[in-house]
Amino acid sequence: MQSKHQKVQIGIVGGTGYTGVELLRTLANHPFAEVTMITSRSEDGVAVAQMYPNLRGIYDLQFSVPDIEKLKTCDVVFFATPHGVAMSMAPELIAHGVKVIDLAADFRIEDLAVWQEWYGIKPASEALMAEAVYGLPEYYREKIRDAKVIANPGCYPTSILLGVLPLLKAGLVNANSLIVDGKSGVSGAGKGANVAMLGAEMSESFKAYGINGHRHLPEMKEKLSQLIGQQVGLTFVPHLLPMVRGMESTIYATLKTDKSQAELQTLYETAYENEPFVDVMPAGSTPETRMVKGSNMCRMAIYCPPGGNMVVVTSVIDNLVKGAAGQAIQNMNIMFDLPENAGLNQVALLP
Amino acid sequence: MQSKHQKVQIGIVGGTGYTGVELLRTLANHPFAEVTMITSRSEDGVAVAQMYPNLRGIYDLQFSVPDIEKLKTCDVVFFATPHGVAMSMAPELIAHGVKVIDLAADFRIEDLAVWQEWYGIKPASEALMAEAVYGLPEYYREKIRDAKVIANPGCYPTSILLGVLPLLKAGLVNANSLIVDGKSGVSGAGKGANVAMLGAEMSESFKAYGINGHRHLPEMKEKLSQLIGQQVGLTFVPHLLPMVRGMESTIYATLKTDKSQAELQTLYETAYENEPFVDVMPAGSTPETRMVKGSNMCRMAIYCPPGGNMVVVTSVIDNLVKGAAGQAIQNMNIMFDLPENAGLNQVALLP
Amino acid sequence: MQSKHQKVQIGIVGGTGYTGVELLRTLANHPFAEVTMITSRSEDGVAVAQMYPNLRGIYDLQFSVPDIEKLKTCDVVFFATPHGVAMSMAPELIAHGVKVIDLAADFRIEDLAVWQEWYGIKPASEALMAEAVYGLPEYYREKIRDAKVIANPGCYPTSILLGVLPLLKAGLVNANSLIVDGKSGVSGAGKGANVAMLGAEMSESFKAYGINGHRHLPEMKEKLSQLIGQQVGLTFVPHLLPMVRGMESTIYATLKTDKSQAELQTLYETAYENEPFVDVMPAGSTPETRMVKGSNMCRMAIYCPPGGNMVVVTSVIDNLVKGAAGQAIQNMNIMFDLPENAGLNQVALLP
Amino acid sequence: MQSKHQKVQIGIVGGTGYTGVELLRTLANHPFAEVTMITSRSEDGVAVAQMYPNLRGIYDLQFSVPDIEKLKTCDVVFFATPHGVAMSMAPELIAHGVKVIDLAADFRIEDLAVWQEWYGIKPASEALMAEAVYGLPEYYREKIRDAKVIANPGCYPTSILLGVLPLLKAGLVNANSLIVDGKSGVSGAGKGANVAMLGAEMSESFKAYGINGHRHLPEMKEKLSQLIGQQVGLTFVPHLLPMVRGMESTIYATLKTDKSQAELQTLYETAYENEPFVDVMPAGSTPETRMVKGSNMCRMAIYCPPGGNMVVVTSVIDNLVKGAAGQAIQNMNIMFDLPENAGLNQVALLP
Repeated sequence: MQSKHQKVQIGIVGGTGYTGVELLRTLANHPFAEVTMITSRSEDGVAVAQMYPNLRGIYDLQFSVPDIEKLKTCDVVFFATPHGVAMSMAPELIAHGVKVIDLAADFRIEDLAVWQEWYGIKPASEALMAEAVYGLPEYYREKIRDAKVIANPGCYPTSILLGVLPLLKAGLVNANSLIVDGKSGVSGAGKGANVAMLGAEMSESFKAYGINGHRHLPEMKEKLSQLIGQQVGLTFVPHLLPMVRGMESTIYATLKTDKSQAELQTLYETAYENEPFVDVMPAGSTPETRMVKGSNMCRMAIYCPPGGNMVVVTSVIDNLVKGAAGQAIQNMNIMFDLPENAGLNQVALLP
Repeated sequence: MQSKHQKVQIGIVGGTGYTGVELLRTLANHPFAEVTMITSRSEDGVAVAQMYPNLRGIYDLQFSVPDIEKLKTCDVVFFATPHGVAMSMAPELIAHGVKVIDLAADFRIEDLAVWQEWYGIKPASEALMAEAVYGLPEYYREKIRDAKVIANPGCYPTSILLGVLPLLKAGLVNANSLIVDGKSGVSGAGKGANVAMLGAEMSESFKAYGINGHRHLPEMKEKLSQLIGQQVGLTFVPHLLPMVRGMESTIYATLKTDKSQAELQTLYETAYENEPFVDVMPAGSTPETRMVKGSNMCRMAIYCPPGGNMVVVTSVIDNLVKGAAGQAIQNMNIMFDLPENAGLNQVALLP
Repeated sequence: MQSKHQKVQIGIVGGTGYTGVELLRTLANHPFAEVTMITSRSEDGVAVAQMYPNLRGIYDLQFSVPDIEKLKTCDVVFFATPHGVAMSMAPELIAHGVKVIDLAADFRIEDLAVWQEWYGIKPASEALMAEAVYGLPEYYREKIRDAKVIANPGCYPTSILLGVLPLLKAGLVNANSLIVDGKSGVSGAGKGANVAMLGAEMSESFKAYGINGHRHLPEMKEKLSQLIGQQVGLTFVPHLLPMVRGMESTIYATLKTDKSQAELQTLYETAYENEPFVDVMPAGSTPETRMVKGSNMCRMAIYCPPGGNMVVVTSVIDNLVKGAAGQAIQNMNIMFDLPENAGLNQVALLP
Repeated sequence: MQSKHQKVQIGIVGGTGYTGVELLRTLANHPFAEVTMITSRSEDGVAVAQMYPNLRGIYDLQFSVPDIEKLKTCDVVFFATPHGVAMSMAPELIAHGVKVIDLAADFRIEDLAVWQEWYGIKPASEALMAEAVYGLPEYYREKIRDAKVIANPGCYPTSILLGVLPLLKAGLVNANSLIVDGKSGVSGAGKGANVAMLGAEMSESFKAYGINGHRHLPEMKEKLSQLIGQQVGLTFVPHLLPMVRGMESTIYATLKTDKSQAELQTLYETAYENEPFVDVMPAGSTPETRMVKGSNMCRMAIYCPPGGNMVVVTSVIDNLVKGAAGQAIQNMNIMFDLPENAGLNQVALLP
């Protein structure tokens, strides 16, 4: 689809959180798209550059109360809202030909019973879900192209699906005993006032959390199972890192047959050779989260520890970019026939 | 005063914050004192070791609703409460011979009009203020010995008064143009849910705050003026450090007459030679906050930058220890004729 | 064994690193032991309090060139040296009845061929190895009591062995497919000038390292195999945390038979009920590294993630205390019939 | 001057440090310039993307041994080298019409005796110094346009000169008693292996350094004195922040006559109204270093603390961008008649 405007007109609903400011930061230099409205009930009338001074001199935009009539004038609306908001406004927008990209979880899980179990509110209707496409371009690009609604993937699922799928799709590993040890920077918890996320609480410390159940687990299991046509068993333990941005997933899988590191390296390099935002690093490399900070890249490496039949993949992303705002823009680019990397050329900030 | 018990019996009112847990940590190894009750309305019945697992295996204590009758059975009650609480409960405790040590600001400023201006609530009565002694042992030790109520100093005032008083008392510097550039770790902001203190907000960043007025400024000006018998002019700019514990104050004063670094070094070494918790470091040393982390020490160094008449003092403390809980215990030790360093022998954690 | 002196006389060889200063910090308040000499060739004559100003006012000691004759006057000598030093000096010390506690790896692996493969230098002689006991008190306490030489365990092995052994000893999990995802603060890399450990390199970033082989892996495999009488298969991926102190190990094991979380909880609580430095936290707890910062505790929790047969254990220690200096002192206390927790009563620094 | 090529051809000498990678990061998206060679003796043949994996997929470039003949084919050569290198190669490059931008200090101080005193090596010749222009565009833009050699300012001087010059040029403050309390992230210390800059040393701690003399002090005093035609007295105390990027300077000056905050606000807003990279924030704002992270902006705020005659300015930059690589590119843009903000449109990374 092409925009009816010179540039794709973007509306952002609920832009006061970290995903919102990150959309604005990234879109500031997008050559073919522009943000024309951004909403927030609580901050109506406040300049975005007042709330986020890194945007001073770049945006004149003010937050406004969400108004569906105005949103209909956009080409695409990003939802950076709590769960439940996107599904309530999407039908009317879609009906008017406006594309919807939801950065929350409203459309991430097709099995509505599972969704309701994990999110505790009424899920989207089946009809609405039928419109939605899971926005992981590396595996759903063709469907994204014509989608009306995009479920932008969770940050952990992005780093983990990209890391494990070449092995699973090739049938090389045991699909029912995957283990993923995930680690996320604190920005993943959002900007809400939360004692556990205070600097005095999370700095200089490290812990696991959500071992008995994280919402990204059913999302991953469903998508993996769909993509390989087989039930997947996955143990997932997320951890909180004492830092702001960045996510690392260490994936452990059991090889069904003997494979050398070189064979697996080739498998991965081939799988992603045309992907602009996946970097399979050379054998022996160590992906570090700072190698992707502020950029839309996912970098990964593949290991075969000696003396066993395990394969280990480590995969890093910036949770706010490839794990959220950057991937949403990548999806938008695909939907509007723009160069997929338009506006996404930021080099990671290192050091 | 001596306790009527084998060990000094301590009550802590409002112990759920960082000052509370730090009192518990430090008192855990105190040979002559023990905590017998700790109160919190909201956490009634919760074990302190559940809220603060570093205390697991050390305290069996539970939080309880504050009960003035029970508090009267203590020898001393520490208030680690919001401003206004200590002054409301102190009269009845004092009347029953219980000592009060307030770690908040209720008794820090004698000028009640100034206090009300900065704290916005009704100050303690003049009668109650007359009972209070400012708990900076290095300058008020004799009064502390017999005090009924201690105003435990603010963290900035502790580091700054200790750093600047030798110069002022010796009349060597201009008292009306002092400048202090202060820096504090985020634990100084307490454990309240506060967006600005989220790890994602304050990590990897640095800023000034409160330039147009910080509550510690009138406290410092009053005490300095009292101690040298002359009005003091002080510009104070506090800053927030991207770390948990530690406070550094860089003090700039203008020498009235020529003095060498060696003369000033001697002045300071002499001033503090008998002080167990003030360390004047050798000329050329650089105090670092980690040199006092977790300990009750204040370390400082004195500089005469070449080519001018300025003297610079840098002074470091742990804001939660010498800047709060440790100093409160030091005051208690003095009040109860215990060795001043009892329970305060922790070595700073470095690295 | 009892010291011939009023207090146990301690010599420290190679005390300029983090393990050295941590020994000094911890021993400062030990009631029954004292450091009488500390050596460093490069820092001969330098006061320890000059190199480590947190020790100012606490130690008068100076570094001196190592002198075996003087070391023989000690009751015990700690080696905080590079690999290879302890084994060269131990025989003469032992011959004179001096106990040796090596905080490096000279005596950690009994299989000398394996040791040489991983450490690249000639291992200790078989005769000398026969004297050595692995200093993990929870599993080797009786042997430690009479040992002449202690191999103080590596930090990762300490956190991992304590975390996994109850499961393995009870025969509940598959011993040949253990997976451990370890994370360590940067102090574990020591005080050497190393670009990769610069603050500008490791702050605000996270990475795996040593996936193809870490020296702690053969140490763990040997000890685990010995303790359960069966070969153990272990995949171990260490990671570097952007913080100074603290180590967390997340252990994944496959249950051979169905066990509930409650059964496993009981297993662990029983296993460690008399251990002063192991804390099995209540079901559902989340061990955080700050809950043990500066203390000799190992805290752990046991999980059975829903929908599978995996058991997950997370275990935290301070890598410099229970992972090094604290455990060495615990070993000394056992060897000299002192209370096992003498000098080790520090409460973790939180926040 | 215009390039003889379609794009300005850039050579970088000594590109392995943080300034080098930051030049590459920023130039990656420059529309009118390209890096054609980058030199390093020690890394000859190594791909820049191997040393700095954030550049993978962006640069094919390899480090090569510096070769003056090849460098002559460039339009401009940036020196990101130790002091002394640029001055040795500049004459031959200039003679061939190649512009030189030195990011080290070779040309920063015109008084050669002062330079030699602080840098300890032979300074550039007077003839060469006569070619050099101090590359602070806000105050030297016209001279930069035609310069052959640019002395790119130090990071502290950039943040401090921009912050204090409006006051000094307007003659409003006492020029001989300025005080600046500066704070820098650890990336300012460069990528050299240096124990004091280890993560285990500088994290979670804060200290002053260089109180008795920092090389940026004579640089600032000379430029300030030149620009206002009067000797300037300045006390400067730099501090090390426990973070990677960012620099804050808190400037204290004494007003000679009464001025309101509003008047000073207007003075600053007027002074910088046409400057693309200086942002005078609204009254009451607090500049934070994260508001400029990764961007070429300098943001500042002006305060008149109540009850005195002091004016306080706080000024923040990213020490590697406006304090180094970004400013160098800004200078290049001016020299080659390019839009001054070409390639410098990165939005600061917040959070």
